[in-house]
Amino acid sequence: MRITVLCGGLGGSRLVDSLGRAAGAEAVTAIGNVGDDVEILGLHVSPDLDTVLYTLANLLDEERGWGVRDETYGALGLAGELGGETWFTLGGRDIGLHLVRTAMLRDGRPLSEVTARLASALGVATRILPATDDSLRTIVTTPDGDLSFQDWFVRRGHRDPVLGVRFEGAADARPAPGVLDAIHEADLVFLAPSNPFVSLGPILAVPGIADALAERSGPVVALAPIVGGRALRGPLAEMLAAQGHEPTALGAARLVAEHADAFVVDPEDEKLAPAVAELGLRPVVAPIVMVDPDHRASVGRGLLDVLDREAALP
Amino acid sequence: MRITVLCGGLGGSRLVDSLGRAAGAEAVTAIGNVGDDVEILGLHVSPDLDTVLYTLANLLDEERGWGVRDETYGALGLAGELGGETWFTLGGRDIGLHLVRTAMLRDGRPLSEVTARLASALGVATRILPATDDSLRTIVTTPDGDLSFQDWFVRRGHRDPVLGVRFEGAADARPAPGVLDAIHEADLVFLAPSNPFVSLGPILAVPGIADALAERSGPVVALAPIVGGRALRGPLAEMLAAQGHEPTALGAARLVAEHADAFVVDPEDEKLAPAVAELGLRPVVAPIVMVDPDHRASVGRGLLDVLDREAALP
Repeated sequence: MRITVLCGGLGGSRLVDSLGRAAGAEAVTAIGNVGDDVEILGLHVSPDLDTVLYTLANLLDEERGWGVRDETYGALGLAGELGGETWFTLGGRDIGLHLVRTAMLRDGRPLSEVTARLASALGVATRILPATDDSLRTIVTTPDGDLSFQDWFVRRGHRDPVLGVRFEGAADARPAPGVLDAIHEADLVFLAPSNPFVSLGPILAVPGIADALAERSGPVVALAPIVGGRALRGPLAEMLAAQGHEPTALGAARLVAEHADAFVVDPEDEKLAPAVAELGLRPVVAPIVMVDPDHRASVGRGLLDVLDREAALP
Repeated sequence: MRITVLCGGLGGSRLVDSLGRAAGAEAVTAIGNVGDDVEILGLHVSPDLDTVLYTLANLLDEERGWGVRDETYGALGLAGELGGETWFTLGGRDIGLHLVRTAMLRDGRPLSEVTARLASALGVATRILPATDDSLRTIVTTPDGDLSFQDWFVRRGHRDPVLGVRFEGAADARPAPGVLDAIHEADLVFLAPSNPFVSLGPILAVPGIADALAERSGPVVALAPIVGGRALRGPLAEMLAAQGHEPTALGAARLVAEHADAFVVDPEDEKLAPAVAELGLRPVVAPIVMVDPDHRASVGRGLLDVLDREAALP
């Protein structure tokens, strides 16, 4: 079985990990968001790709949900004393990865090649593809004006209401090598339980990717990024409300309905199934809380089993 | 009193520190070597300037004689796992400084301005000037061919005999802003007890600097980089021998005789004074072992006192 997952950071990485544990890591391709990428202290940081990479390499600080665990902060500390930016927390091992990536990018290698090399060096068998090798940046419109994603999310602590989101450079971005094939050739494509605005949005904004999803004969299965009215992580519920959407799994389902065939809600949200069906999505009920790494294999297997039973699989 | 010191790394930094402790940090200007500068993991590293900076900021690992003390190595460790260069050891705080410097250089700021900002941020009152803002690189000729300085010194552990040294880019290098004035206007100029070939050599190779020394009416005082036949640090004794020079303070004196008026030997080498005088240098005998930070103020004061007594001072 070949599985492709369009994914953002933490929620996406957990689905990728769960499916890899269930179906074999090499069966899975992750197509990751680069709209959050940011240059800090001259380093090219790809937070979402790194969260996937660190999760699969068993390096992620699972408590915080970002970065490498057991880090030290000498570099950031002295950089701060010297006037460098410290609002984006970078631990030592994290900086080691960014140094290598940045040097390879400066050598002219595309991000997709760099990402593949990093994954391979860390023994990660899952293929991790950036949605695009071109520059695509998520810009968040707030009452105080436009902010780059990390300015909004980290520097200002996602306190500013989000009036809209756009993706700078998207019109000219091309899917990275392998992305369209991974969508076309997969037996099963997932839209991860990632933020539809700022995690899936920048991926789907790359010309060709949404068309590739639409052209598939096999299923595209979206997972609810909200369980019981709470986002498992991040500011999705607030973003939905601020933009006039219902801050529930159903509100999130509306945002991905045009790209998916099926929508998985947690048993806690089973009552939403009829409303999901009204959106033209086949409702699927399965446990989708994947916070604990020890539960991920069974969540992944459960998900594939229920999709198989419901004939959503080929 | 205004004092200017032409200096390399460790030996130079200790003289600068000693004189600063004796005469006041703000009385001293250090003109540092950039021939050893190297790009590692995309970072611009200036080992000699940093040794001076770390010494004066009380950050230096005095045991090792380089880098910041109490470092952690997460960045270098993960960079190494990912295929990055690890032959040049960079600790965490050290990387923090290199990140800030590299970002400022990429912004188009000259190294002299960047160095001044770093020193100021660390509360260092001594002025630290790179000899030049232009690219000047020390190349060591060995039986195995030409090597960049750090390739020879660190990567290959300075095992290769040195047949010669040259300074790539020197012909087109201009003294950094303030360098010539610091030489002209100082009451006293020192040539630090640094390696004449690879520490003082690249400074003196910048067109205009040797002339500025020659044009001075005040004294230029060189310190012996060898005490009792041993270099206090580094491979100088071997380099002298390999190039047919006597591996003693006298051999080192010959190499700086054309630039200096006086030459200071340690009391242990008092017997060399007559031979130093024969080179046309006024021999001065004073304790010059400055390894222990607690001894530096008294070494600095002793040095200034003896130079004063011998009428070498204005």
